[in-house]
Amino acid sequence: MRATLMYGAGDVRVEDVPDSVIKLPTDALVRVTASCICGSDLWPYGSMPPADAPARMGHEFVGVVEDTGAEVTTVTRGDLVVAPFAISDNACAFCRDGLHTSCAHPQANFWGSGSEDGGQAEAVRVPLADGTLVKLPVAPDSALMPSLLTLSDVLGTGHHAAVAGGVNERTSVTVIGDGAVGLLAVLSAKRLGAERIILMGRHQARTDFGREFGATDVVAARGEEGIARVRELTGGHGTRAVIEAVGHLTAYEQALGVVRRGGVISRVGVPQYEEAPVGFGSLFRHNLRLAGGPAPVRAYIEELMPDILDGTIEPGKVFDTTTDLDGVPAGYQAMADRKNLKVLIAP
Amino acid sequence: MRATLMYGAGDVRVEDVPDSVIKLPTDALVRVTASCICGSDLWPYGSMPPADAPARMGHEFVGVVEDTGAEVTTVTRGDLVVAPFAISDNACAFCRDGLHTSCAHPQANFWGSGSEDGGQAEAVRVPLADGTLVKLPVAPDSALMPSLLTLSDVLGTGHHAAVAGGVNERTSVTVIGDGAVGLLAVLSAKRLGAERIILMGRHQARTDFGREFGATDVVAARGEEGIARVRELTGGHGTRAVIEAVGHLTAYEQALGVVRRGGVISRVGVPQYEEAPVGFGSLFRHNLRLAGGPAPVRAYIEELMPDILDGTIEPGKVFDTTTDLDGVPAGYQAMADRKNLKVLIAP
Repeated sequence: MRATLMYGAGDVRVEDVPDSVIKLPTDALVRVTASCICGSDLWPYGSMPPADAPARMGHEFVGVVEDTGAEVTTVTRGDLVVAPFAISDNACAFCRDGLHTSCAHPQANFWGSGSEDGGQAEAVRVPLADGTLVKLPVAPDSALMPSLLTLSDVLGTGHHAAVAGGVNERTSVTVIGDGAVGLLAVLSAKRLGAERIILMGRHQARTDFGREFGATDVVAARGEEGIARVRELTGGHGTRAVIEAVGHLTAYEQALGVVRRGGVISRVGVPQYEEAPVGFGSLFRHNLRLAGGPAPVRAYIEELMPDILDGTIEPGKVFDTTTDLDGVPAGYQAMADRKNLKVLIAP
Repeated sequence: MRATLMYGAGDVRVEDVPDSVIKLPTDALVRVTASCICGSDLWPYGSMPPADAPARMGHEFVGVVEDTGAEVTTVTRGDLVVAPFAISDNACAFCRDGLHTSCAHPQANFWGSGSEDGGQAEAVRVPLADGTLVKLPVAPDSALMPSLLTLSDVLGTGHHAAVAGGVNERTSVTVIGDGAVGLLAVLSAKRLGAERIILMGRHQARTDFGREFGATDVVAARGEEGIARVRELTGGHGTRAVIEAVGHLTAYEQALGVVRRGGVISRVGVPQYEEAPVGFGSLFRHNLRLAGGPAPVRAYIEELMPDILDGTIEPGKVFDTTTDLDGVPAGYQAMADRKNLKVLIAP
């Protein structure tokens, strides 16, 4: 079968690999019908050392179950399923808390780590199939497929950002970042009733999407100028919730600048830094809180899917192009060049 | 009148200063009947550069109103009052949110900043008296006075630590630090119903106090050994809430080691660092949250005072000695040497 491998920064290839097969009685084999490239795939695409290569890529996919191990009970051959970006048993103490990304099962993992399969491929061996996979009540050629695919990561991540930021109908929120996660954080904040949503982003095509998803204000300026503009919009105070959907230290510093005293910075962009200011002069003085992390999207699928099925939300609009597997390397480059927002892959 | 001044590290003096007087119509003049030395006073006592000297000291006091400005309406001559460590108007948007330490009034401040008065003195000019002062329904010689004095800072700070840590009757909590704030964080967690309270501290006299206040377990070891011990006590997982009541980076790192995945680190020890690990490998990977800051003790007085008046809690037990103003310099040294837990001053 064919799969996507990353050999180093800027070097993505689609190659023949051994067919994925069931290895454990809790596995399922899924034939991928739709997957995509994630903003977080661009971090290694920008900096991966060749020593770590090759890595199997892709952690967001929908597909049809082709085979199941003897112990799998919740999905069966022929089911259309979505796979969250974290493998989990949906049963341990952390999963029961809704924190599937911290599942304690020995096989719990993120896709693409080590020798595991990745979703940017023809097929995937899915460990802990009962815990990981969720059935989709539509046909593989449903027009809803792009939106349902976002349940695997990007919608759930936007939703998590809003939940971790405490967003509700009394909240003003600033979203930093106009990538797919930032835009779906806007959609999620709107869905949770936020009264005001300020989107900070520089790419007008994307921020226009953001307005469509619910942004009430757009601030194109960054740094001190952007901070001043958000403060101007909010009576000088900033917003109670700030969603940081980028991952760079400059975005965190921007968040510190626009968060209201006593407010919360909710991070879902994977931090590209380890140390950051958190002392008296940054977080402590005004009781600012820091929240967020990898989204336990599995915990959110039951809540979010009905809104997709009935057309209340259309998160699939973040896909602005579709390619086959051959087009994946070009898709990485197009996203890195910001020519495409998010690439859908139909293998 | 006499007041406490700090001239530099290790150099505290009690000197004659000009009498405090009413300056603004919103001021009150308070004759101090009880004040104390705070753990946070020990930070400048350890490191204050002489260039910043002299600084008026003390931010926790109880006293009798001696005079009031023309616009003061809530307190009057002869009232016994307690002053929170932050001056606030109790009226702005932040005070209405219960965040009095971030009061937006131009006169809002912490005691002892700049040329302001301090509580370790015979008298204090209290700005924004209506917002800042709270009447105490007892006589100045009440046996409850040590406990009521803790409403000015240390009890409210322990309570804030527990509240910011989300402590309730389903919470296990680790408290790092056996100083007065740590011990009253134990008392506060117990008061809020925490099912398990692990106190990390090395001074047995203090941790014995902690047990009296509600600690179910004491861990004397620090660093990796202490972390391992807490994990052993909690099935390997750590606790959902961790209260960091020290302020050193090593205490923050210890908090990272004992917090459960998805849990919260609540800081009330003033951070003696600005940068700290908050990236993927520390906070982000497991959705750990960071909370806390200067406690808005004014917001908590109405809730906490009845429990002192009816004897439900006795936070005044943290005072293990009493001195007059002449004894203040020795009191600083005794606390720095950890010979005394907390020094009460009867001017």
